[in-house]
Amino acid sequence: MLCVGLDPLPDRLPKGISVAQFCIDIVDATADLVCAFKPQFAHFGALGAEQELAEIIGYIHASYPDIPVILDAKRGDVPSTAERYAVEAFERYEADAVTVNPYLGMDSIEPFLAYSDRGVILLARTSNAGAGWLQDEGEPVFLRVAKAAADMNRSGNVALVAGATHPEELARIRGEVGDMPLLVPGVGSQGGDVAKVLAAGLAPKGNGLIINSSRGILYASDLADYAEAARSAAEDVVRTIRRAVTGLNSSAS
Amino acid sequence: MLCVGLDPLPDRLPKGISVAQFCIDIVDATADLVCAFKPQFAHFGALGAEQELAEIIGYIHASYPDIPVILDAKRGDVPSTAERYAVEAFERYEADAVTVNPYLGMDSIEPFLAYSDRGVILLARTSNAGAGWLQDEGEPVFLRVAKAAADMNRSGNVALVAGATHPEELARIRGEVGDMPLLVPGVGSQGGDVAKVLAAGLAPKGNGLIINSSRGILYASDLADYAEAARSAAEDVVRTIRRAVTGLNSSAS
Repeated sequence: MLCVGLDPLPDRLPKGISVAQFCIDIVDATADLVCAFKPQFAHFGALGAEQELAEIIGYIHASYPDIPVILDAKRGDVPSTAERYAVEAFERYEADAVTVNPYLGMDSIEPFLAYSDRGVILLARTSNAGAGWLQDEGEPVFLRVAKAAADMNRSGNVALVAGATHPEELARIRGEVGDMPLLVPGVGSQGGDVAKVLAAGLAPKGNGLIINSSRGILYASDLADYAEAARSAAEDVVRTIRRAVTGLNSSAS
Repeated sequence: MLCVGLDPLPDRLPKGISVAQFCIDIVDATADLVCAFKPQFAHFGALGAEQELAEIIGYIHASYPDIPVILDAKRGDVPSTAERYAVEAFERYEADAVTVNPYLGMDSIEPFLAYSDRGVILLARTSNAGAGWLQDEGEPVFLRVAKAAADMNRSGNVALVAGATHPEELARIRGEVGDMPLLVPGVGSQGGDVAKVLAAGLAPKGNGLIINSSRGILYASDLADYAEAARSAAEDVVRTIRRAVTGLNSSAS
């Protein structure tokens, strides 16, 4: 279930290692442990590193064709503009899935859904401290997004973001969406608990979770052993996931 | 009050004219008519034209130092990532203001507010048909965003997006935010009415509106006279604005 987030920060990179090399080394070091990679657009955009972003995605597709790439761009705009963002994500960067902000409403999601062979991951409950301000209001907005996502899932290509830091909300989302995949940020440096995430979020069929870790893996070491250290940190998360699954299975039986 | 949006569409550009040249020609043709230019990120991102986007913004700053550039990127992410988006908008592209999606809550806005000499334009009520799905719920979310924007306006650098297609909501937003500037998309091809926008949205002190037009100006002609045609379309909007202001003043007296 592990997804490794690729969030390159210039002042965290090991000396003499470029953004592209760093990310590719992390990919190689963790590919057999992950279900997805998630490059985060802002970290490339802030550096003017769009070309490197495209290269990294191309490298993952060529080297690990079975591992999907989620472009974490949280796009959202009026329909005619959303169409351009869909072109950016799916045609220019050739992402397998993209994160989308639902604030502009359902017509703003349609241009992404039109790519029925790509994934569309709507923000439901994000992992940051301020998320509840809007997302928990009234009939919670995050549940309304979850219900709408279930309704619009005509091509089986819709998923949701549900933060690890709010397992109760994650369980309510799971209750609305059947086996839909949930992309779960917020374990590791944000403090989300893997065992609670699994207890709350496993799909009825099992699995259905894409548990993202970015900084805890990328910056496990800032020395020359960063790739080994990243692998070791990724192994730790996978072990924690396996232990939690075993715990759930034995408590269920 | 006119803001010209720069949304280059490859199949709408006059023959043989590059994205950068097209936008620069539109800028030169309309600069004396506008209060701001608004390049729309998706239209550059879809084309891999970030370098051109930076060039165009640089050109506006160099040639028209009094005209602010609003980067319409609708960014929104957890605080550590929002910080990277703020770097992208304000340091890499040197935008004077950026549009921000409030879905992630107020902590996600803080990294933008930290640039106290730049503008932060939160989405309140967007102009697309599906906007009400989330934005009009309960105590309408768009009003909650407006109130929060008024509260967080410590440096006088906060503004709001309020679509021209919903003048009643625009009036309610104006009622919450005093003289705060409102960026108003949706006149022209989306059908918003300039006179209704002015009646609903003028600030108590007068003005306070940034009325955006993109496609109606950019694509007034797809022939060699596109720049003249753009100027003429921009003049039409300015005339409409002036007529509406005059109408309001005479009905008030």
